[in-house]
Amino acid sequence: MLEKLDLYRRMPKDEYRQLTDKYEPRFAELQRKLKAFKIPVLIIFEGWDAAGKGTLINKLILSLDPRGYKVHPTNAPTEDERLRPFLWRFWVNTPIDGGMAVFDRSWYGRVLVERVDKIVGKKIWQRAYDDIIAFERQLSEEGAVIIKFFLHISKEEQKKRFKKLRKSPATAWKVTSEDMRHHDQYDKYVQAIEEMLSRTDTAHAPWTLIEAHNRRFAYTKILRTVVQTLERKLSEKEFEQEQPGNTTPVTAEQESASILDQVDLNVSLDRETYDEELKYYQRRIRELEHEIFLKRIPVVIMYEGWDAAGKGGNIRRLVRGLDPRGYEVIPIAAPTSEEKAHHFLWRFWRQFPKAGHIAIFDRSWYGRVLVERVEGFCSEKEWRRAYRQINEMEMQWANFGTVLVKFWLQIDQDEQLRRFKERESNPAKQWKLTEEDWRNREKWGLYKAAVDEMLLRTSSSRAPWHIIESNNKWYARIKVLKTVCKMIEQRL
Amino acid sequence: MLEKLDLYRRMPKDEYRQLTDKYEPRFAELQRKLKAFKIPVLIIFEGWDAAGKGTLINKLILSLDPRGYKVHPTNAPTEDERLRPFLWRFWVNTPIDGGMAVFDRSWYGRVLVERVDKIVGKKIWQRAYDDIIAFERQLSEEGAVIIKFFLHISKEEQKKRFKKLRKSPATAWKVTSEDMRHHDQYDKYVQAIEEMLSRTDTAHAPWTLIEAHNRRFAYTKILRTVVQTLERKLSEKEFEQEQPGNTTPVTAEQESASILDQVDLNVSLDRETYDEELKYYQRRIRELEHEIFLKRIPVVIMYEGWDAAGKGGNIRRLVRGLDPRGYEVIPIAAPTSEEKAHHFLWRFWRQFPKAGHIAIFDRSWYGRVLVERVEGFCSEKEWRRAYRQINEMEMQWANFGTVLVKFWLQIDQDEQLRRFKERESNPAKQWKLTEEDWRNREKWGLYKAAVDEMLLRTSSSRAPWHIIESNNKWYARIKVLKTVCKMIEQRL
Repeated sequence: MLEKLDLYRRMPKDEYRQLTDKYEPRFAELQRKLKAFKIPVLIIFEGWDAAGKGTLINKLILSLDPRGYKVHPTNAPTEDERLRPFLWRFWVNTPIDGGMAVFDRSWYGRVLVERVDKIVGKKIWQRAYDDIIAFERQLSEEGAVIIKFFLHISKEEQKKRFKKLRKSPATAWKVTSEDMRHHDQYDKYVQAIEEMLSRTDTAHAPWTLIEAHNRRFAYTKILRTVVQTLERKLSEKEFEQEQPGNTTPVTAEQESASILDQVDLNVSLDRETYDEELKYYQRRIRELEHEIFLKRIPVVIMYEGWDAAGKGGNIRRLVRGLDPRGYEVIPIAAPTSEEKAHHFLWRFWRQFPKAGHIAIFDRSWYGRVLVERVEGFCSEKEWRRAYRQINEMEMQWANFGTVLVKFWLQIDQDEQLRRFKERESNPAKQWKLTEEDWRNREKWGLYKAAVDEMLLRTSSSRAPWHIIESNNKWYARIKVLKTVCKMIEQRL
Repeated sequence: MLEKLDLYRRMPKDEYRQLTDKYEPRFAELQRKLKAFKIPVLIIFEGWDAAGKGTLINKLILSLDPRGYKVHPTNAPTEDERLRPFLWRFWVNTPIDGGMAVFDRSWYGRVLVERVDKIVGKKIWQRAYDDIIAFERQLSEEGAVIIKFFLHISKEEQKKRFKKLRKSPATAWKVTSEDMRHHDQYDKYVQAIEEMLSRTDTAHAPWTLIEAHNRRFAYTKILRTVVQTLERKLSEKEFEQEQPGNTTPVTAEQESASILDQVDLNVSLDRETYDEELKYYQRRIRELEHEIFLKRIPVVIMYEGWDAAGKGGNIRRLVRGLDPRGYEVIPIAAPTSEEKAHHFLWRFWRQFPKAGHIAIFDRSWYGRVLVERVEGFCSEKEWRRAYRQINEMEMQWANFGTVLVKFWLQIDQDEQLRRFKERESNPAKQWKLTEEDWRNREKWGLYKAAVDEMLLRTSSSRAPWHIIESNNKWYARIKVLKTVCKMIEQRL
């Protein structure tokens, strides 16, 4: 693939002038329009050392308002970054809606330098391909534009450039011994690069190869590609907006068999057994907390369930024995303005715990297929594709070695009513009950259908759902503790 | 001070029961009320190794809803943290309004372990005292409660505890060689601790000494102190709310002499000189960017000025020559919901650049004494004390070695009108002009008084204001470039 490129293409100065005069003002105007349309843009620069990435990025952004973009140089991961899945540091830096992020090297490091330099094993970089493709698709599905450049120069050209750089004391420091080692491995890299280009050249995030021997040629090709891609995206967006909305009202679908209906809610526990087991498992989980810390295993525990199903009390029993320096409880409310201006999974990626720590989510990323679906806060298209996006994220976390425990706290309608009334009449508990709880209750059928579909579509062997029978709170608490202990023990 | 403590105080079990039964439920209820009143709480635990900090923190938070607090263990700073002023990592972790942050060790590390172990020099830890006192006062002024505990045990007791821990293989790892070294230096530490306690025992953030030989005694003393402090704060707050608001309308004050009136706006530059100097300084600043990177010097450049004074165009000329991996432009708009729920300086602390990098703020922390003052978005008390808070922050940044360059872009009313009209009639520039711009213009006199007072109160030799005559844009751009170059050169 690379060898087919005509690297010796030149560009006369007047043609160059003509092209930049044509495209640069358009690029500046596009930046404003993208902001108005809230479209996030990611521009990725990969390429050989000394291919001119830095210079070309500089030239490209000169036409722009500096308040609207951010350049992210990608170096070897820091300690904090190594303690998370490899995509974490890129997720947290995805641009806000209407913003532009330029990556000087990127997530492709994993299948290039980390692969060729054997920093990670074959299994890991092979799997990274799936992660990368899913990542780019997820962003593009929610409206982001992804433009990827690979800057190509020949081995001879690279040698020539290194030589020139080393001659001047002002630039000699730029050529490191690592660069020279990579130069010697040029042919090995060609293989890895070609595999990367062909495996990740997707419709939503295609690669553009840049013949980078001649700066003028390279720059205009990059500029033109960016402008044309963005203009295409804008006209699509304008077209969409002219179309009438096609949100169909959500109705309670009849799944062939309701999973929830099969749950036996009559199970219970007597006080004595409860006290005994509570004591036992709270001590056990403390030991396990210490072990996962030593082995640097991240643990994510997640609660979903009906209003008044007892999430709060359950979480308190779960953490009572733990060392608070090792866990964090993360309550999930309606997204903030900043969170709304990102991919819906962004805020959960940001909260991914450091390896060795426990994150407990009180409600979660499943909000999209539950409350947002039922209340119409997102379109049907959006929540439908969310199942796959969620599965992909959980798989990426599992691949990183994460223990992921998902709980659905199940109670029936009668029990919920009983608890609502109790809260109403007990002054110490009134603050727990809101108008919204009553409104949600009226939509029990719609929520039930959503829960059933969620359980069906997002339970997998690596990230199974655990349904917790919660009419009896003691039973529920012990089952949660037991399950968490078991899941961690399996991983150790 | 420490030797006066009666370390051998004991507490019978029934008295202990009685006290915990009394205070624990009150603590849980207080947590809910604090949330309702949006009061942030910081609880700091300092003390000897093996004094029982971990265990006591655990016990203390057991009564609480885990969704409302966060425990921050303080270890040696990471690389990322070392590249910022030492308070940075604590600033970014200050709790949200209504939230609680528990620090297991804290910013006092600088005047304890870092002092005694000679990790930093005398000048640095001496100066840290001012930083710490200012930090705590700033938080408390904006409504935070700060509760500080020092857990004291005798040298003999510490030795006994280390011995016991080392006996069991399950706990032996807890005693590090560093702990033993600190133990040998016990008396040296006593000195440092006593100095710390007396210098930082302030009305808004007092120390409570805890006799920590006996767990029951220590726990109840901590619990009671926390509950009583919080109850006092709540009743103050309730009292305040009952008082009628005392916001006096802001009027254009007559400062003895307006600084702005003395600015000669007739200065200008011809095209030829402009082009020449622009080229020269853009190259120069690029060289300087590289030098500050090598020397790990952080640079903060900040723009304030009238609407249409030319901030945007000015910033673009400033960054045109720079490597985008070395700087970031940070536009400051109205605060997000998350930012509003913190101290008003929090969001600027968060954006402090890594040492070696440049942060360019387009509008800034001066918003509080400009737009927030004039538009009444904060109380008079709030903006009045903001001058000192801002000066303190800038001094802390300067102490870290930061190059801080503050610009006020000055134009007169006629020039502003001319530019507004030009924007109005030019379709390519209309997006720049909003209704708000016209409204602000009507309040020119109020803004002018605010600017004059700001320039007067926040200009210091270490963080001077530079007034940029901006009726002529070319002149303004060159003056900004020159000033930045000069300020960086002085620092090198």
